[in-house]
Amino acid sequence: MNSTAPIADIDLRRASVCQLLHWLAVGRVQPQALADTYQAAIERINPELNAYVDLRPGLLQEQARTATHRRRDGVLGRLDGIPIALKDNFDMAGWPTRAGLPGREEPVQEDSHVVARLRASGAVLVGKTNMDEAALGAATDNPHSGPTHNPYRHDYSAGGSSGGAAAAVAAGLAAAAVGSDSLGSIRIPASYCGVYALKPTHGEISTRGMLPAARRLDAVGLLARSANDLTVLLQVLAGYDADDARSRRRRVAFSPPDWEPGNLRAGLLPDLAAVGVEADVIEVFEAALARLPRELGERRTVDFSDWNFARTRRAGLLLMEAEMLGTFAPDLADTSRPVSPRLRQMLEYAARKSAADYAMADRVLDAATLKMRRLFAQIDVLVLPTTPQGAFPLDGPAPDSVADLTSFASLAGCPAVSIPMGALPGGRPIGMQFVGARGSDLRLLELAAVCASTLDMEPIYPAIA
Amino acid sequence: MNSTAPIADIDLRRASVCQLLHWLAVGRVQPQALADTYQAAIERINPELNAYVDLRPGLLQEQARTATHRRRDGVLGRLDGIPIALKDNFDMAGWPTRAGLPGREEPVQEDSHVVARLRASGAVLVGKTNMDEAALGAATDNPHSGPTHNPYRHDYSAGGSSGGAAAAVAAGLAAAAVGSDSLGSIRIPASYCGVYALKPTHGEISTRGMLPAARRLDAVGLLARSANDLTVLLQVLAGYDADDARSRRRRVAFSPPDWEPGNLRAGLLPDLAAVGVEADVIEVFEAALARLPRELGERRTVDFSDWNFARTRRAGLLLMEAEMLGTFAPDLADTSRPVSPRLRQMLEYAARKSAADYAMADRVLDAATLKMRRLFAQIDVLVLPTTPQGAFPLDGPAPDSVADLTSFASLAGCPAVSIPMGALPGGRPIGMQFVGARGSDLRLLELAAVCASTLDMEPIYPAIA
Repeated sequence: MNSTAPIADIDLRRASVCQLLHWLAVGRVQPQALADTYQAAIERINPELNAYVDLRPGLLQEQARTATHRRRDGVLGRLDGIPIALKDNFDMAGWPTRAGLPGREEPVQEDSHVVARLRASGAVLVGKTNMDEAALGAATDNPHSGPTHNPYRHDYSAGGSSGGAAAAVAAGLAAAAVGSDSLGSIRIPASYCGVYALKPTHGEISTRGMLPAARRLDAVGLLARSANDLTVLLQVLAGYDADDARSRRRRVAFSPPDWEPGNLRAGLLPDLAAVGVEADVIEVFEAALARLPRELGERRTVDFSDWNFARTRRAGLLLMEAEMLGTFAPDLADTSRPVSPRLRQMLEYAARKSAADYAMADRVLDAATLKMRRLFAQIDVLVLPTTPQGAFPLDGPAPDSVADLTSFASLAGCPAVSIPMGALPGGRPIGMQFVGARGSDLRLLELAAVCASTLDMEPIYPAIA
Repeated sequence: MNSTAPIADIDLRRASVCQLLHWLAVGRVQPQALADTYQAAIERINPELNAYVDLRPGLLQEQARTATHRRRDGVLGRLDGIPIALKDNFDMAGWPTRAGLPGREEPVQEDSHVVARLRASGAVLVGKTNMDEAALGAATDNPHSGPTHNPYRHDYSAGGSSGGAAAAVAAGLAAAAVGSDSLGSIRIPASYCGVYALKPTHGEISTRGMLPAARRLDAVGLLARSANDLTVLLQVLAGYDADDARSRRRRVAFSPPDWEPGNLRAGLLPDLAAVGVEADVIEVFEAALARLPRELGERRTVDFSDWNFARTRRAGLLLMEAEMLGTFAPDLADTSRPVSPRLRQMLEYAARKSAADYAMADRVLDAATLKMRRLFAQIDVLVLPTTPQGAFPLDGPAPDSVADLTSFASLAGCPAVSIPMGALPGGRPIGMQFVGARGSDLRLLELAAVCASTLDMEPIYPAIA
């Protein structure tokens, strides 16, 4: 291929952030042309997909124009000119933060930490993406803004609560996206939409300016079309923030030096069916594992017989519901902007729970912390499917178990990465999850990149493209 | 004084741990003789003082005999032969952990972290000390085990909830003591009993085997007759414990190197009366401050106008009550061992609070964390009285504000040290408190030692001695 030949629109929309940065650096594409491509795709596809719920005319191109001018003298930062989508529970100055709730139309005054960092890195902010009402859900079937469809299968869920963000990345309507993950809200849609996701170590990326769900669980999550992109995004966004009470100075080196891909101990659950993983998911998972004999090193069966995935997920959910009940009390009281019966029911469930119930649920998080500490004394990484099932139809409810395999990393504050590992019947993607000890984020991403490279997934481009 | 002359019993009971260690090292006293002195004092004084609520005949001497034999070949650890008292909410194998509650007579199987560390250091464990019922109180006027009297004034409170431990140290019935502090339970009795106390950075000493009050507030606290003793105890007990979910690896150097006594910025509240400190306490505090012109360096008035001490103390209390309601539900249900109406009322208050109330109270802790972070960007140490008032009569209730000046360091996870700063009318001691940024424990103790040395408090020996 001639190095000055124009790149096809579809390739710009399928490319990783790293690939786009290369093309931008060598002048194969300008930020403005990149933005035009994404803008055109959004106009064509978004009405049907409903990934974005807030877009401002001309804004994408305006930022891209500035980035194009800037490129004449160099770049502002790591993501200069890259179109990034933002879940609608992060503050962006001048925009409302609706968080999937009705009647929250007041524009906020200040950028959240992640928006400020993205701007400083030169990223082009595309718009705000659809999510479950108040981030309490895993379907992105929002009663106020409508459902986001799965790019691989219309009328199926994109997962949630960051479904809009994952669908935007999968369908080539953003190069990457920033969302939130309190029990799996980044990883579940990544699994369903066939994209890559990182839920970092708790406190690693500041949640300042993100609408809190449960502060002990809340994490900024990242979505992209390659594992290496997640590393770039993490480096842009991570670090101590004195204005976030949950932000932590790193206690351990960001990547423990004593394990590396190809020379590690990988933990596997003894019986996935017993923890509710569906047979077709197990089949895809085992086929993928069989292709990673070297990458995963020594395999060890780990003991989770003392662990009730459903019960612990339920404990995490109570923390979210209770804290949101406090946060959204004014919304619940204001009859001019009615929340859905489903959300009201969840929050009213929390209203019937006592302060002691909360404290006892919070203790489950301490137990998860100890469980994971002990586990990661024996293994380096835990490998399991990201979700027990593939995307479900939008006309049915989300399965109860949808967050069972993601929530325990949230409860323990551990980092987790999801990569596409194959497709279920009907072409629905499904993810493989890597969970590591706190602080092992970069190593997990390295391992994920190596495994993804070996799996060399045939891209199953969304029918919608 | 002849270096081989025997040391008077009263001097052995007034001496600091460091002084005792010196006398033991040079052979001026043997562990056994030291134990005999303390044992005799306990037999004479404890029936009236009620500092200890569980003592085993011969046990003190048995351990001391072993320590004496050991000294022929060297020592086991830093505290070899030193008699230490233990608050009755720490597990000690073979003893019940009553925690001031009725009917908890079953001996526990395992040592708590602190007991294991004390044993390994060669310390001689004297017995278990009186406390408020379930550690929820500041009077040590226990309905089941009776009140501990203030060694300086009979029929006055020793403070709480670690009142028995503080009284034992003040009255020379232990060389030092280990207790717990969730909102001030170590510092309040230290203030009232004229002894030295440290509430370390949250997570610095493992709370494994301590009956939890509120895990986000709970700290192991130390009581001694000198600031330097607290440093020795801290070094014996501190460190990461993989089996305690709240134990933390140090994020910052244990002592930030960028401030030192004599060259620091000390923060003072602009108006102590406005936050409820009684006039006679302010008088003693200002007189003490006037004697520390050099030690406290540059003085800055700090802004606490945005801080409601009573409201934030109340938030912390709710966390304790709610979590204890969960922990003690079986005790409440068991009518054969009735808890006091007061405790039942406190726990029933929590039972009426919702999970959302808990989450909102927990948010106050995040706010406290941020408040203190910002404060310690401007100053190195906050100096204030430990308690708004001196010891109160046992026939009245504890003042509502008793923990107002101690609780915010607990909420923010910051270390705090209390030293005696003078006496109120009637000879009641009162403490000066130093609060520092997380991790500044050793610097705080250094500053406390320097200030205590300058104040050179005339020892006001307990009338009871």
